[in-house]
Amino acid sequence: MTTAVRFSGVLAPVVTPFNRDLSANAQRLVEQCRWLLSKKVGLAVFGTNSEANSMSTGEKIELLDALLDAGIESAKLMPGTGCCAITDTVQLTRHAAKLGCGGVLMLPPFYYKNVSDDGLFRSYSEVIERVGDNRLRIYLYHIPPVAQVGLSLELVERLVVRYPDTVVGIKDSSGDWSNTEALIERGWDDFRVFAGSEAFLLQNMRAGGAGCISATANINPAAIHQLYASWQSASADAQQQQLNELRQIMQSFPMIPALKAVIARYSRQAEWSVVRPPLEELAGDAYSKLISVLEKRGFGMPGLTD
Amino acid sequence: MTTAVRFSGVLAPVVTPFNRDLSANAQRLVEQCRWLLSKKVGLAVFGTNSEANSMSTGEKIELLDALLDAGIESAKLMPGTGCCAITDTVQLTRHAAKLGCGGVLMLPPFYYKNVSDDGLFRSYSEVIERVGDNRLRIYLYHIPPVAQVGLSLELVERLVVRYPDTVVGIKDSSGDWSNTEALIERGWDDFRVFAGSEAFLLQNMRAGGAGCISATANINPAAIHQLYASWQSASADAQQQQLNELRQIMQSFPMIPALKAVIARYSRQAEWSVVRPPLEELAGDAYSKLISVLEKRGFGMPGLTD
Repeated sequence: MTTAVRFSGVLAPVVTPFNRDLSANAQRLVEQCRWLLSKKVGLAVFGTNSEANSMSTGEKIELLDALLDAGIESAKLMPGTGCCAITDTVQLTRHAAKLGCGGVLMLPPFYYKNVSDDGLFRSYSEVIERVGDNRLRIYLYHIPPVAQVGLSLELVERLVVRYPDTVVGIKDSSGDWSNTEALIERGWDDFRVFAGSEAFLLQNMRAGGAGCISATANINPAAIHQLYASWQSASADAQQQQLNELRQIMQSFPMIPALKAVIARYSRQAEWSVVRPPLEELAGDAYSKLISVLEKRGFGMPGLTD
Repeated sequence: MTTAVRFSGVLAPVVTPFNRDLSANAQRLVEQCRWLLSKKVGLAVFGTNSEANSMSTGEKIELLDALLDAGIESAKLMPGTGCCAITDTVQLTRHAAKLGCGGVLMLPPFYYKNVSDDGLFRSYSEVIERVGDNRLRIYLYHIPPVAQVGLSLELVERLVVRYPDTVVGIKDSSGDWSNTEALIERGWDDFRVFAGSEAFLLQNMRAGGAGCISATANINPAAIHQLYASWQSASADAQQQQLNELRQIMQSFPMIPALKAVIARYSRQAEWSVVRPPLEELAGDAYSKLISVLEKRGFGMPGLTD
């Protein structure tokens, strides 16, 4: 029996390249994933910043197959598989487990609001039982600002206690450090707590966390990984400061269109800027402002096409 | 060229029957739809109260086919077709239009929050253009308390002006009467404004609205239709009062499990109480309390098995 190594380090919710007709471009995704891997960043494809929830289950399965077919190592993949419908979540999660993905990042069902912990426990539990694959490794995805349905500490505890070999970590995108800290302090055996932004990376490492899964790792992977790798060094605080500066620039624009605009510019592939509705491409003044601010601060990101 | 008659009157977001293994029970849905039609209530299948967002697109297509195969008149059907992913929304909407459904009820994509009106306009517009079927009739679905992504008056106006023969109505589940009233007062040609609850039915009819699409029409269809049909009569206010009383009872429980518990009891089909996670079946004290309150107030609903 193979035992999957649990994730640690920096992962990117890899942005999904679309063609002008809004279809996904698998070849371009493969290239982006290869580039991220070369920067030592793992692949949390189908995250919030991947526009995962703007794609059907069938489209996600096709893209995952394309990545594997292109030789991307399955152990480096942590696809997002949590959908509104349990049938979609089971189908996508089962596929990811069958392919040997290192883990999956699982949103709770997010349409119905004010649901109980019992209902959410049952939701995760049904998925685990139905997938029925001992290779499955779930990283819970707590992102209340977007999903509006969050995962309480008590719920996480119930899941870890009931499924210690399956529920092995969490991405905390609450933006609430006290929650991240509390998750680490519970001290569940080898449980991996990822900050949802590199703004908390150093704090998370010092507290005993596992790393971060962050949007900006799409465009700044090497520097974020560098801090992860050297968080105990004397330069760590200065590195964090540098990361924060880029993060703050990006956060003053709509994140997904801004990430794609940056990649489009520095890869010289204009189609990278395409987003699916309801999002809108960054254009005109906003685009010019983003590029000018980045270049003024010296974030030219030539590394993007290395 | 056939021109679909626009909907008016009372529609139920038909609750979806699941088997104990959580699979959908198409035959039972057919029976429920026939019963609702016999009470003169239209079929807004795949609404919020149908647990539509707990089912995959494939499951919804299968159920829709089963309804048509069983002889349910397509003109009476207003399936919910708005999903997070544009590809799902297009697939389901195209299917509904092809089957000749009287209309579709369309949520905006609801995962990404704080999206712009331009982005939402583009979302509806892309779906309409991609479906490319002049039989398509869209009723917009505004339900900010659940979807968290609402439809502004300005957005609705842009859609109606751009697609006057396609965007023909709205269900307003904001619970904000001033918004419903404002939609009616815009006076778009033959635009159908449905209240999202029968609590606003009389007010809506008096203001020039088209009716209501309401959860409790699943269990109280005849009385709600009666008010719709006789809203100009002397008894209208008293009828509204009666409807409100049942509504208030139901609203003091989680609505979907409570509707299913009532149907299970009065149809003597216990499986009707099954809900998909993250919802939870109404059981124990809550169940007993609901039934006892209903019976004490004389809402025995023998009509359910008529």
